[in-house]
Amino acid sequence: MSHEITREVYPYIHTIQARWLDFDILGHVNNVEYYRYFEAAIIRFLVDSGLDWIKDPVIPFAAETGCRFIKATPMVESVDAGLRVAHLGRSSMKFELGIFISGDPYAYATGFFVHVYVDRATEKAVAIPEKLKRALESIS
Amino acid sequence: MSHEITREVYPYIHTIQARWLDFDILGHVNNVEYYRYFEAAIIRFLVDSGLDWIKDPVIPFAAETGCRFIKATPMVESVDAGLRVAHLGRSSMKFELGIFISGDPYAYATGFFVHVYVDRATEKAVAIPEKLKRALESIS
Amino acid sequence: MSHEITREVYPYIHTIQARWLDFDILGHVNNVEYYRYFEAAIIRFLVDSGLDWIKDPVIPFAAETGCRFIKATPMVESVDAGLRVAHLGRSSMKFELGIFISGDPYAYATGFFVHVYVDRATEKAVAIPEKLKRALESIS
Amino acid sequence: MSHEITREVYPYIHTIQARWLDFDILGHVNNVEYYRYFEAAIIRFLVDSGLDWIKDPVIPFAAETGCRFIKATPMVESVDAGLRVAHLGRSSMKFELGIFISGDPYAYATGFFVHVYVDRATEKAVAIPEKLKRALESIS
Repeated sequence: MSHEITREVYPYIHTIQARWLDFDILGHVNNVEYYRYFEAAIIRFLVDSGLDWIKDPVIPFAAETGCRFIKATPMVESVDAGLRVAHLGRSSMKFELGIFISGDPYAYATGFFVHVYVDRATEKAVAIPEKLKRALESIS
Repeated sequence: MSHEITREVYPYIHTIQARWLDFDILGHVNNVEYYRYFEAAIIRFLVDSGLDWIKDPVIPFAAETGCRFIKATPMVESVDAGLRVAHLGRSSMKFELGIFISGDPYAYATGFFVHVYVDRATEKAVAIPEKLKRALESIS
Repeated sequence: MSHEITREVYPYIHTIQARWLDFDILGHVNNVEYYRYFEAAIIRFLVDSGLDWIKDPVIPFAAETGCRFIKATPMVESVDAGLRVAHLGRSSMKFELGIFISGDPYAYATGFFVHVYVDRATEKAVAIPEKLKRALESIS
Repeated sequence: MSHEITREVYPYIHTIQARWLDFDILGHVNNVEYYRYFEAAIIRFLVDSGLDWIKDPVIPFAAETGCRFIKATPMVESVDAGLRVAHLGRSSMKFELGIFISGDPYAYATGFFVHVYVDRATEKAVAIPEKLKRALESIS
């Protein structure tokens, strides 16, 4: 059950500094900002794996994303985003993510991010580049 | 199929001004910003239906959200967010949304937003207040 | 004195939809967001005056900005941004702005935005294009 | 001259993770986001100095801010924000800031942030609390 998901589920953890305006008037991380955290972890992982968003001929486009909110996240300095690869196809793949805060083993939110790799010029789906595929396998 | 979803699916349409930083370096609406648009339409509808986020004893919490990205949204002045109620339970309900731009009948993205109504003090699920229930029924 | 500045000071008024996350945990418009409002009014004015940020060979770069915060802006549906041209040089110019809310004649914040027009390729300062110069003169 | 300002000017340096949407369609840090970086450095310093934004009876309000943009900041993983206290009065004070990136000794932007300390309930100006005053003196 998702309220029992812990950091151990995720081979890759990226710590993200929270910003003042991640929190809304109710004092919690705004629900949209969880996707900002997902994005930060995924971009960090892909760039460290060799992706160049500006120059590479093949780049990922988001096809579908989702998030389940388990507990309201209070004002904290940083959150940990856990990342794993749940599916790795020829041109599409799926990340699963969890958001954690210091001192609590259980996820505050879990989510997913489906990427389709496309040719930048034609925007047609193409195979995931080898260097990225190997990196993605390493956290699957 | 989602690429054939039109504005007619949604009884409530809210037009949202785009902002310069809704668009990323690739020239498209950033995928996280679609949820910001969903949020804007939902908040507008609920506030116009009588919800006071600061004073009401019962408020909705997001429980789950999701989005399917159909076409990249180019730099535009505004987007139209379509809103309908797909499920209306005792304490939880589900919105479905579509994002459109001027001059194109088909959705650029579709998504959903599940709300659970809670007592602000205890954060326990409670019944959806009557005035909001009637408003939600009107777009279901 | 700035607390007596009214909409009449500004020949151009642009109404901006507020978003949920313009407001912080203290219940006011976050001070950084005023610059977002300034940006929205300026971009709207320039695009309506014929500027194409993506294709034009000459575009403005921000050189200096500033804001004085007069009163905390409460949760509102929209704000009005007033815009005037306070200085118009060969390659640089200065906008002055004011932020207002419905029902109150006096500014909640005032600010400025200095633009330098540059050649997109070389990033060297060049003359303000004629069509924009005429538009800027019309609100000076 | 501001284009020669280096990190040594600032006794306190806070490194800030950049986010994907700090960068706009032109590939640079959006000019509004520099204020977000200023905010992050100031909040980190004040919270580490004992300020509790939610509970303290006396909190700072932004009275005036400004930024000079020296060079466009390219896509980077993080920026360094330098912070110093340039003026420390009874109830108001002024921070000066500089934004730097890895591998370059010179500031990409410089700015300031004037805070007035107010009683949270009455919003009247009051003396800066002693613990914060000592912390602010340490970086003046």
